[in-house]
Amino acid sequence: MITETKEVTTTETAASTLQHRHLLGLETYSREEIELILETARQFREVLYRPIRQVPTLRGVTIVNLFFEPSTRTRISFELAEKRLSASPINFSSSGSSVSKGETLKDTAQNVEAMQIDMVVIRHSSPGAPHFLTKCVDAVVINAGDGAHEHPTQGLLDLLTISDRFDSVDGLNVSIVGDIKFSRVARSNIHALTKLGANVTLCGPQTLLPVDVHKLVPDATIRITSRLDEALDGCDVAMALRIQLERQGTNLGPSLREYHEQFGIKLQHLEQYKDLLIMHPGPVNRGVELASEVVDHERAIILNQVTNGVAVRMAVLFLLSGVGKGED
Amino acid sequence: MITETKEVTTTETAASTLQHRHLLGLETYSREEIELILETARQFREVLYRPIRQVPTLRGVTIVNLFFEPSTRTRISFELAEKRLSASPINFSSSGSSVSKGETLKDTAQNVEAMQIDMVVIRHSSPGAPHFLTKCVDAVVINAGDGAHEHPTQGLLDLLTISDRFDSVDGLNVSIVGDIKFSRVARSNIHALTKLGANVTLCGPQTLLPVDVHKLVPDATIRITSRLDEALDGCDVAMALRIQLERQGTNLGPSLREYHEQFGIKLQHLEQYKDLLIMHPGPVNRGVELASEVVDHERAIILNQVTNGVAVRMAVLFLLSGVGKGED
Amino acid sequence: MITETKEVTTTETAASTLQHRHLLGLETYSREEIELILETARQFREVLYRPIRQVPTLRGVTIVNLFFEPSTRTRISFELAEKRLSASPINFSSSGSSVSKGETLKDTAQNVEAMQIDMVVIRHSSPGAPHFLTKCVDAVVINAGDGAHEHPTQGLLDLLTISDRFDSVDGLNVSIVGDIKFSRVARSNIHALTKLGANVTLCGPQTLLPVDVHKLVPDATIRITSRLDEALDGCDVAMALRIQLERQGTNLGPSLREYHEQFGIKLQHLEQYKDLLIMHPGPVNRGVELASEVVDHERAIILNQVTNGVAVRMAVLFLLSGVGKGED
Repeated sequence: MITETKEVTTTETAASTLQHRHLLGLETYSREEIELILETARQFREVLYRPIRQVPTLRGVTIVNLFFEPSTRTRISFELAEKRLSASPINFSSSGSSVSKGETLKDTAQNVEAMQIDMVVIRHSSPGAPHFLTKCVDAVVINAGDGAHEHPTQGLLDLLTISDRFDSVDGLNVSIVGDIKFSRVARSNIHALTKLGANVTLCGPQTLLPVDVHKLVPDATIRITSRLDEALDGCDVAMALRIQLERQGTNLGPSLREYHEQFGIKLQHLEQYKDLLIMHPGPVNRGVELASEVVDHERAIILNQVTNGVAVRMAVLFLLSGVGKGED
Repeated sequence: MITETKEVTTTETAASTLQHRHLLGLETYSREEIELILETARQFREVLYRPIRQVPTLRGVTIVNLFFEPSTRTRISFELAEKRLSASPINFSSSGSSVSKGETLKDTAQNVEAMQIDMVVIRHSSPGAPHFLTKCVDAVVINAGDGAHEHPTQGLLDLLTISDRFDSVDGLNVSIVGDIKFSRVARSNIHALTKLGANVTLCGPQTLLPVDVHKLVPDATIRITSRLDEALDGCDVAMALRIQLERQGTNLGPSLREYHEQFGIKLQHLEQYKDLLIMHPGPVNRGVELASEVVDHERAIILNQVTNGVAVRMAVLFLLSGVGKGED
Repeated sequence: MITETKEVTTTETAASTLQHRHLLGLETYSREEIELILETARQFREVLYRPIRQVPTLRGVTIVNLFFEPSTRTRISFELAEKRLSASPINFSSSGSSVSKGETLKDTAQNVEAMQIDMVVIRHSSPGAPHFLTKCVDAVVINAGDGAHEHPTQGLLDLLTISDRFDSVDGLNVSIVGDIKFSRVARSNIHALTKLGANVTLCGPQTLLPVDVHKLVPDATIRITSRLDEALDGCDVAMALRIQLERQGTNLGPSLREYHEQFGIKLQHLEQYKDLLIMHPGPVNRGVELASEVVDHERAIILNQVTNGVAVRMAVLFLLSGVGKGED
């Protein structure tokens, strides 16, 4: 195992260490840091295919998973990554907790810290909550989704999944389809993709498109459209976003049926665009963002995203833990 | 430990390996497979009485406990079995999960699978859900209760508990009392008991007796009665089923008081039938299925069932994991 | 590690072993037993500052955390203590459990026991529930808070935190401020502090002061007052209790604003009483029991309490586990 973690820290294709202590978002991460994470994730991914899928890398490292929003796959994915690295995860979800007793996030955080926790994985409905946390605690903070701000490990696993299929992300045409405006997945992906040189197209109903996208990534050329065909034509990868069911039929969102008609990716699109790959952060609303046959199509790489999620989270946990750092 | 697991795989009294990849129910399991599980469970049970109650057998094996129905003892029993085998359990219960976001069982399953999970323990209100799961995933599936269909580890632990008390199950008279019609516990027990040669009597209110029992186990002679005395006379073991409180006082079920009067096992029965042993899958409604004094009586072997539950689940997890298979 | 645990059992400054099998409350614990726990906790605390914060002391020991009341910090603190000792914790909280199926505490306990659990940590709204548990099971029982009765590990961690700051607890003046009458934290602290020779002052609204305090600790001199200044004057440590929000504005309790005015500790108190240290069991209602600036003040040692909580729980778990006992 020591051997392996050494290999990880001496990889040549990318930066050899992260400049950041935390992972709050991809906006401030450099291309080199992102590539280091992807390269490390590729190496950890091999662990997942071994008979014994556990390495002792983070033995004795205590990690609290602070989930203030419900989550299945992200929590399980982090917990699996932690267990496969032999860390000791403690799960905390807001129901049945002292948050319902009116405790502030700051107090929760400081208490967690006083228990000598090494790392905190936090999901919270408020944008900036993970950043705020870093002000209160010394522990390493990893953002597992904060409001409509960022979901950086999602962006990284999406990037890893794309990079598995192409020689280079540079110059690829990637379209993100759906509720862009309120999507932390979209924001993290926009940052990650443009840093690695992809051309990004955003597609969705007018009301769900961001107005300030060029403020978001000032140097990047981002195309915006409300016509799905325009987004899919010449596109290498289409990333459908989960539609927030609570916005359907309001002023902000169309009905599900209307949405599927205008923005749902259907079998005919896969037939028309022969090389198009389909991604989705899950959980998919079958028949809404994607036709059910699209979800199960061989060019849908949604389950590869899930597999890569565990590997990317192992890489992020390992790189931010500081374990193995400065060892030679 | 290696020694021990070898002993397990080379036991002579039963089949040396399971023919099935999954444990969906006992209906399709052969007598030899059932005996192999019981024999393996007896060996693992010794682990439970050691000072260190943990063996490294399933180290690095990842198991997801997918509980779509509330459960205390079955979940804890599985989790204990997993931890005592040094596996890495991940708990998933439907509240606070993406099931509430409308994800299908298939999607949940495929996501779990994409995370390289080795085994899935599933409890679900729909009969056949574990079977459906095997169609979607490569992981080993263990049914922890599916609607009114089967609860195979319960059937196995009941059989182990009975076999602890008698030289042979063959020819024993076992009565199952209660809501037979909707009971997965009853169904798994009927399969297990008849395969091992027990004579089974089913006893309950007319409305809660199955109409198709001879379709269920065509070769077996199963007696059906609505008179408790008839069921207990000459009976070696009476297995009371938990009454579903929600059915009381409806067309299907009598009131609790009526139920206890007609079908509740009382102290007088233990006095009248001197060798009668009492079982119950728990949790007992004291004063309904069993008088409170019966629960605490020395001939109630309910807590032995609980102890055996952990051992049986260790055996099932070990045998289905494939660990140790083909090692010599 | 063996070395370390040996050191722990051969410490000279205190009793070398606990006389009790369980920790139900501090009322019946002797001064020597309390000192043994504190001394052991100091040694375990060193573990918390190591790079690898885990010791193999309780490997293979199974512990069930039975939380019938919501809790963040106490549950996480126990779980961390258990994991750092390499025990195998199983979490049980009342929601989604068979308690909602109407199972009695006795039945839950006996089931837990039948699974060969070594230790049970229980939080319950009924005073005496942990004591009742010891009647039903052979496992070691640790009270994590039972109604308004006791919260002994809180009392111990408070005592450890105080003893860190002073040469001796003997003769210290400690004031407990708030809802004394219904507080298990106050009761455990009163027992612990008076046994070690501290002078205790209780301060709170008339309606929230106990009438029977001299029955509670017959030999001790305990001062009672409803004037905060009287309680703080000459006081070494002030321990604010959490106000139960549900009692505000009822016959029993004042409004939050009134409470803060009369019983809230404010910055001016820290300026007036130059050596006063502030404690709180958490979670703090900022601006109620303590002004927000007081919580963040350098003389508030609330986060030290949290750190000590993990160490004290490690010590209690270790000493009651019997591991290392009678080894030479």
